[in-house]
Amino acid sequence: MSIAEAGEFGLIGRIISRLGSGPATLLGPGDDAAVVRAADGRVVASTDVLVEGRHFRRDWCGPADIGHRAAAANLADIVAMGATPTALLVALCVPTGTDPTWVEGLADGLSDEAGLVGASVVGGDMSASPTLTIAVTALGDLGGAAPVRRDGAQPGDILALSGRIGYAAAGLTVLSRGFRTPKLLVEAYRRPAVRYAAGPEAARLGATSMIDVSDGLLQDLGHVATASVVGIDVHSDAFDVPDQMRDAANALGVDPYQWILAGGDDHPLAATFPPGVSLPEGWQVIGAVHDGTGVTVDRKPWTGGGLGWDHFR
Amino acid sequence: MSIAEAGEFGLIGRIISRLGSGPATLLGPGDDAAVVRAADGRVVASTDVLVEGRHFRRDWCGPADIGHRAAAANLADIVAMGATPTALLVALCVPTGTDPTWVEGLADGLSDEAGLVGASVVGGDMSASPTLTIAVTALGDLGGAAPVRRDGAQPGDILALSGRIGYAAAGLTVLSRGFRTPKLLVEAYRRPAVRYAAGPEAARLGATSMIDVSDGLLQDLGHVATASVVGIDVHSDAFDVPDQMRDAANALGVDPYQWILAGGDDHPLAATFPPGVSLPEGWQVIGAVHDGTGVTVDRKPWTGGGLGWDHFR
Repeated sequence: MSIAEAGEFGLIGRIISRLGSGPATLLGPGDDAAVVRAADGRVVASTDVLVEGRHFRRDWCGPADIGHRAAAANLADIVAMGATPTALLVALCVPTGTDPTWVEGLADGLSDEAGLVGASVVGGDMSASPTLTIAVTALGDLGGAAPVRRDGAQPGDILALSGRIGYAAAGLTVLSRGFRTPKLLVEAYRRPAVRYAAGPEAARLGATSMIDVSDGLLQDLGHVATASVVGIDVHSDAFDVPDQMRDAANALGVDPYQWILAGGDDHPLAATFPPGVSLPEGWQVIGAVHDGTGVTVDRKPWTGGGLGWDHFR
Repeated sequence: MSIAEAGEFGLIGRIISRLGSGPATLLGPGDDAAVVRAADGRVVASTDVLVEGRHFRRDWCGPADIGHRAAAANLADIVAMGATPTALLVALCVPTGTDPTWVEGLADGLSDEAGLVGASVVGGDMSASPTLTIAVTALGDLGGAAPVRRDGAQPGDILALSGRIGYAAAGLTVLSRGFRTPKLLVEAYRRPAVRYAAGPEAARLGATSMIDVSDGLLQDLGHVATASVVGIDVHSDAFDVPDQMRDAANALGVDPYQWILAGGDDHPLAATFPPGVSLPEGWQVIGAVHDGTGVTVDRKPWTGGGLGWDHFR
């Protein structure tokens, strides 16, 4: 059966029945709009879109993987403000020949990833389209705290990272060269393992700025440097290159630092903290903020290649 | 210049500079997420997606028209809950050859339509895609009131409508037959004129159920009838068929009631009210709720044709 045979409302019904309901959901899917708790009196909101062939390939990732990735990309934006995610809304465009079970798998992935942070899918829309496209909006709650923005980094701050970096980009290179292993890297590309709790944790620790590293560390830190009007230096010796990444890099003829410094899709959080902060486990100091502009690696411009993703190129 | 030449961040910068900022915007575009006031402690949220060739055509509508339509489709969902819109987020997928000025026109339309209700575009995402796709999420504030859902209609209630109906569907037929006039109908298709204030007004008047009529009156009332476990009868003599619509219908060989009862895109609000309610100007009684199931026209099943849109067919 194709989704054209199932019909719009039949398919929506099948999907809604698979979605859980989180504690913030006051009115879930099925009406003109959802109603979500925003106890703080403010709501944090972000939208990210994934396009087949550009952000994912169906032969590289199963539907649940793609659901996990789409949810993770959005949930990471919410926690990067220091907020706790509450809800997702999903606009899904699918070719008419798509099997409804594929769409159900996607919904499961979205719902399961949201469930990791106590959020749920509260609404959405669906249309046929020649291009499989998933636009997700995530909502979140600041719990009384100030949002951690990109523009608060100060000279003298330390730069720290929480979460894997370079793994997903390495996995993407592996897949694009036609390989399916090492599993560690390929699985990291298929399903990011975002340290969601690190976002609100950084806010409590007094982070002066924070960003979800989605398009490449140097490029995303460039947004922080520009917004904060500071320079940021990344210390290359701060990164462990795991054996499987080093072996894959050697086998494929790639500099692993290209994955680490310019690769996307892992969604670690990069944050700046006042000097002297005591960072708990899960955070790794990777650089420092100084007077100046731009992003350097070991105080020199990065010459290893592209800085990150431009979604029009 | 194409958007590929402008680059993702160049284009995003050009767009952000064109967007206004509404009173609910605490942190607008440019960070990982926006922060929007939700004074009520709850946020109303809805997502609608428009796909080129299915929901709009660039040769029938200019970029600002498409922006107005995309915003209106979402804002109407918010007011149909009885809420006041506060913010839009926009995920935009555009072919790489698109002219940046087209995208700027779209942003102007989105921003201007949001401005009609004091809302603004607070965030978004952009990607290249073979298929021009616009996914909009709207947020809104209930101002202390209960949301007006689809499941509260009671036998004995009256059914009322606020806003134009059939105009946009007539305009679509006119355009699809290769004509550009009557202007009244074509313009109604290009830019819906939603009576946004009627949503919160209906909530204050004690509406027992409400829906944004986006896919066709009979089909959308079917959702209310199913959710409320009631029957709904529509009185065909309640509708004025304006002269230009009647003339166009005669010229094109179409039953104008097909546009009125099964056409989409005008986004009037349909609501049920307890009997005896005194409805202000702008609301028109068009039927009644009774014990039973399903939707009838003059107590008979509608045999005029399709009930409305299925976005997979």
